[in-house]
Amino acid sequence: MSIKNFTAYNPTRLHFGEGVIEDLGKTVKQYGSKVLLVYGKESVKKYGYYDQVARQLTGAGIQWIEYAGIKPNPVIEDVRKAAAFGMENGVDVVLALGGGSVIDSSKIIAATIATGIEPWDIVSWKNHPQQSLPLICVLTLAATGTEMNAAAVVQNEKTQEKLGYVNPLMFPKESFLDPQYTITVPADYTSYGIVDLIAHALEAFYGGGEPSVVDKITLSIIKDAMETAPRLMADLSNYDLRAAIMLDATLALNGLTSYGKTGGDWGVHGIGHEISLLFDTPHGATLSIAYPAWLKLQKERIPERILFMGKELFGATTVDESIAQLEAFFASIQSPVKLSDIGLADKTSAILAQLNRNKVSGMHHALTEEDHKVLVELMW
Amino acid sequence: MSIKNFTAYNPTRLHFGEGVIEDLGKTVKQYGSKVLLVYGKESVKKYGYYDQVARQLTGAGIQWIEYAGIKPNPVIEDVRKAAAFGMENGVDVVLALGGGSVIDSSKIIAATIATGIEPWDIVSWKNHPQQSLPLICVLTLAATGTEMNAAAVVQNEKTQEKLGYVNPLMFPKESFLDPQYTITVPADYTSYGIVDLIAHALEAFYGGGEPSVVDKITLSIIKDAMETAPRLMADLSNYDLRAAIMLDATLALNGLTSYGKTGGDWGVHGIGHEISLLFDTPHGATLSIAYPAWLKLQKERIPERILFMGKELFGATTVDESIAQLEAFFASIQSPVKLSDIGLADKTSAILAQLNRNKVSGMHHALTEEDHKVLVELMW
Repeated sequence: MSIKNFTAYNPTRLHFGEGVIEDLGKTVKQYGSKVLLVYGKESVKKYGYYDQVARQLTGAGIQWIEYAGIKPNPVIEDVRKAAAFGMENGVDVVLALGGGSVIDSSKIIAATIATGIEPWDIVSWKNHPQQSLPLICVLTLAATGTEMNAAAVVQNEKTQEKLGYVNPLMFPKESFLDPQYTITVPADYTSYGIVDLIAHALEAFYGGGEPSVVDKITLSIIKDAMETAPRLMADLSNYDLRAAIMLDATLALNGLTSYGKTGGDWGVHGIGHEISLLFDTPHGATLSIAYPAWLKLQKERIPERILFMGKELFGATTVDESIAQLEAFFASIQSPVKLSDIGLADKTSAILAQLNRNKVSGMHHALTEEDHKVLVELMW
Repeated sequence: MSIKNFTAYNPTRLHFGEGVIEDLGKTVKQYGSKVLLVYGKESVKKYGYYDQVARQLTGAGIQWIEYAGIKPNPVIEDVRKAAAFGMENGVDVVLALGGGSVIDSSKIIAATIATGIEPWDIVSWKNHPQQSLPLICVLTLAATGTEMNAAAVVQNEKTQEKLGYVNPLMFPKESFLDPQYTITVPADYTSYGIVDLIAHALEAFYGGGEPSVVDKITLSIIKDAMETAPRLMADLSNYDLRAAIMLDATLALNGLTSYGKTGGDWGVHGIGHEISLLFDTPHGATLSIAYPAWLKLQKERIPERILFMGKELFGATTVDESIAQLEAFFASIQSPVKLSDIGLADKTSAILAQLNRNKVSGMHHALTEEDHKVLVELMW
């Protein structure tokens, strides 16, 4: 069957556009009256986003407490501390102000507060929460798509794992996406965000299932991002271009690209997560290195599929050209495509050991220890 | 701004694929215990769909009453009678088994039962219900997209109006889409369904807003339907092709194609509705006649937009070729493209009077009485 059985469900209400923050106060009020506000770096204060959120909460007569300092590769300790703080203070809503790391952490925080389950037991799929506090998001980075999905990725330095957890309870109730909030994102993280969204679409594209309208849509999203990217990199404060990338990022991982498929592959994300875990490398930067390597590994296994991608995106006529063009695109927006680009040329054995150790693999394209070896060579 | 501010919200849970009906009983049970089952013609009995639904309800210990006989162009009298019957019997869930007419009627029925409002006051936007019974749908026709949106179209023969109403309360809670249920749809209605879904995508495409990823997605949906259509018309019992069209139809009108736009145009639907109202013409058949005429009317007003469509869909190089190709596509799947194709060549003055009378127009491309005259000529 070309379209596999699937369930589509996504209850998040997305508020997209300039000034949508004006509806935040009254929206939060619908869900509760005591908020745990979660954010990361002080940049949300520097750029005024924090003040706008605070003004909304104050204006709506909402009390709040804060947990700041979520790290770019978020760690379970912060989730645990923030949840404990929220529980002590009896909050009834979690409000995330930030990018993927803040929102992903907040998803687990909200479930932990509602259930008292040890948060790493949630992330590691040992104990599934049956309830969660309502989560509301104000997004400041176009990249992960977490603002409109039910997934969260958190790492545990003690166990040396970076895991992804999914639970429909964790869909944000409401997400506020003002492209203006992403205008202050510097060039490097803008680029990593674009890589990340394209990688999400590719994980879906290389997942299970046969060609269908969903492939056409997935490639449309990638194409739009690739057309927009060079213009945005040259004009970082352009609202329209920021908006285009922001919408692309949401669409790349809100469920749509998996309709009628049996899930994405996620092998490349697995590789990337291990590199981030070892060296705190930004997520997007790991993906622009890992994707070309993964495609080279797969090129004799799934040549038609790779060529289908290359043809649609670049008008490529061969598998090699398809891969080379993708790599060239990543390089053109200054995202690294080799470990040596980020000073990790001498870390190949540590990376290989880590890939072996955590048995990194894909859902549809299994990776063996031999594959890991080839991949590390190809990334070097 | 290329992407206009918008809110995306669609809480319907879609169960797509062969055999999904097996989850119907336990799903309905989550919402209530006394069901009003609404359907249209006896064909749902003939083909066994009714029996499968009945078995599911019985198996889950659910009581139900039935309202049968919803017409293909649904009328307010049936809505009123069905709602009264539901109220008398204290139902707490509405279950629609059928295509667009049954589901659209059921949306208004569910709101009427919950509120007691006169149903035509709902459809004509005079009195907005603040609550509704949960609606669950089992779809038997790929066409209108109503299974995953909050809109309903119903006609009133007394007032000579066919109106569309939208209310987020009317999103179906759950919709069951088994492509197998559409295999018995005859060639003509299969064709009308394809026209309808393409027309929905076109209404979005010709709505407000600038080119964005959403246009690419919208054209992807049309392209997929156009590639699938000739194969399906030649092989009506092919599951994969039925599934492709069913998914295309849902995606064409579940909100996605309007993200970042200021709504669709709907002028062509307005024209089609008037013809259906006068002559009980199938909805899709009116659209394949009205769309080419409308494009010819607009060709000097929005040439770039029409050429953009034609280029993407057909590789057309001129506006005239773009329109001719669309018309040729409709004709190729045996949908009428002229009033004379359906024996209405002598009804032009009645149609013109009706278009004038109901001031048929689009949301973004206004239609004057002079335009009506030109349109009727072009449809003839």
